[in-house]
Amino acid sequence: MSEPVSRIARSLESATPFVAPEALERQGFQIHLRLGANESAFGASPAAIEAMSRAATVTHWYNDPESWELREAVGAREQVPPETVVVGPGIDGLLSLICRVVLDPGSSVVTTKGSYPTFTYAARGVGAVVHEVPYSAEKVDLGGLAEAARNYGARLVYVANPDNPSGSWQCAEELAKLRAELPSDTLLVLDEAYREYAPGPGTRTPLASTIRLRTFSKAHGMAGARIGYALAEPWFSVQADKIRMHFEVNSIAQAGALASVEDPEWVKSVASRTAEGVKVVHGLCESLGLGSLDTHTNFVLVDLGSPARANRMLREMLELGVFLRKPGLPPLDRYVRVTVGLPDQMSEFGDILRRWIESGARE
Amino acid sequence: MSEPVSRIARSLESATPFVAPEALERQGFQIHLRLGANESAFGASPAAIEAMSRAATVTHWYNDPESWELREAVGAREQVPPETVVVGPGIDGLLSLICRVVLDPGSSVVTTKGSYPTFTYAARGVGAVVHEVPYSAEKVDLGGLAEAARNYGARLVYVANPDNPSGSWQCAEELAKLRAELPSDTLLVLDEAYREYAPGPGTRTPLASTIRLRTFSKAHGMAGARIGYALAEPWFSVQADKIRMHFEVNSIAQAGALASVEDPEWVKSVASRTAEGVKVVHGLCESLGLGSLDTHTNFVLVDLGSPARANRMLREMLELGVFLRKPGLPPLDRYVRVTVGLPDQMSEFGDILRRWIESGARE
Repeated sequence: MSEPVSRIARSLESATPFVAPEALERQGFQIHLRLGANESAFGASPAAIEAMSRAATVTHWYNDPESWELREAVGAREQVPPETVVVGPGIDGLLSLICRVVLDPGSSVVTTKGSYPTFTYAARGVGAVVHEVPYSAEKVDLGGLAEAARNYGARLVYVANPDNPSGSWQCAEELAKLRAELPSDTLLVLDEAYREYAPGPGTRTPLASTIRLRTFSKAHGMAGARIGYALAEPWFSVQADKIRMHFEVNSIAQAGALASVEDPEWVKSVASRTAEGVKVVHGLCESLGLGSLDTHTNFVLVDLGSPARANRMLREMLELGVFLRKPGLPPLDRYVRVTVGLPDQMSEFGDILRRWIESGARE
Repeated sequence: MSEPVSRIARSLESATPFVAPEALERQGFQIHLRLGANESAFGASPAAIEAMSRAATVTHWYNDPESWELREAVGAREQVPPETVVVGPGIDGLLSLICRVVLDPGSSVVTTKGSYPTFTYAARGVGAVVHEVPYSAEKVDLGGLAEAARNYGARLVYVANPDNPSGSWQCAEELAKLRAELPSDTLLVLDEAYREYAPGPGTRTPLASTIRLRTFSKAHGMAGARIGYALAEPWFSVQADKIRMHFEVNSIAQAGALASVEDPEWVKSVASRTAEGVKVVHGLCESLGLGSLDTHTNFVLVDLGSPARANRMLREMLELGVFLRKPGLPPLDRYVRVTVGLPDQMSEFGDILRRWIESGARE
């Protein structure tokens, strides 16, 4: 008897985009410093936590499938109509939705080789063909993406800005230039998960054929709540409503996100404390003779000199109870990615890294 | 410039499976009795609420993408290996996932005409062709489904058991007979959202090529939390892991669901209080000269005699602040569906319905 499996699922290989720290703990590692998933150790806004606790008492009611209050609040803040705000279960969920709304099996998409893998995962999950453009000088290569999009007739181009894992960032003018260089019916998806850590607000006015993605997982400190939104032209919302699961966003997350949008001081404070932590990590690297890249995010890429040494550091840190991740592909695979946490955590990490470097004169 | 929209999205008409009470309130209706969405007014287990409130303080960490603790707890309770438990964002999310994992554009599926519309929505959302079998004597017609599945070469057959909106239920032997009558490579999806209200546990041993769906939205009182699970053969989990968004289940929902699984007395008490409420509604109908159907769920179909009168009742109840829903298609469209709530709510609803019936001698 053959199993009833779709052509697309049958064509895909089994793969796990991210091994979670919980899975590592189930393998026997005891993690006491969780610096690997770019989570915000500063936590959610106290107002958001209170709103979520309150919402937890009434989860027996369904959520509002239109997320209307949140869309109004986001629209007011971003100065766009609520109809252009599409709320979804995190950027991951929105990437999956976008791929389903926009792509056919065989459609070409373009992304940066080694950038956020969940986009690639979502695109392959609808049978799209993924073309990857390498980083150029450890930055996203906007010119290269535009060229590839034209060459492959791409229906969609994905740019994380600020980028994960490179930490690089491009200003509004550079993105407008990219948009202008793309065919007008190629959708530009800007994943702005880390925007709160980046300089300047970016462009507010939506660009044509562009979707900007925002999340409550990073500076808002609500990674586990699974909620984010897309800013898009109205056609996207109309099409998305034909495909999306209308009740997919948790009501507790809706309440927390609304409270967090209404507490912008919290996010500002997180961004500023994160920037302090970034300086600490850069200073630590300098004092240890390690290079590190500039960043516009809540993480720092630390240069271990070679992929082999970076892999060894990752493994040995895990044995010491420190959960980190690293880019898997050149040119970034000689770096280890360190998420900036609380001052105490950075100080503890500094001690551990210093001891590791000193004992590792065996290099 | 043409919008970049997939063939499937382009082919679908805009439709909203359910208008939410929040949307009705935004239209100006003030709802004080929410009896339309089969939510559990008894709420979630106090242990689950406490677990969710606690989890709300640490949403800055990502959820466990494997939902491992919950799968272990469910597996222990259902006496199946955790590998056969697939956790997802509610049955809606699992239906969408199943359709993506199993169906190709053009695949045939079979369901009951007028049964849970979100399955049909999910199937059309992957380009499947939906064949509908009418209810027979206000029950799901298992023989008719088997015959249609053979005639159309269906890859998937959907059965809600207990069924929504008919409230009917079929025993394990009848389902085993259906399974035996289906082609061996036709997947049987049993949506058991209301199982806690039904007599007997159903079969525990998984049937071949069968997926059973369970939710925390109904008797567990966590509709807004969006969490449920599938019990399936191991191949489904392997294929689902290629397609599903691994971080899609909210961490607060995971914590609440785990606590609720570990508090089976709560669900039993909800089921028994719901059964009392069902009796009250049946008694109310009898005293008002209205028919009502037997039910194995937390709702009662009340017979208004004609679709026109049922529609009028729905509209006028909404004006009176009572949110109800009703089946839209024959043979059930002369019924209004009343969700069983707390004793006070049932008593208030009884008063309102009595006045409506008495004033409506104009019928």
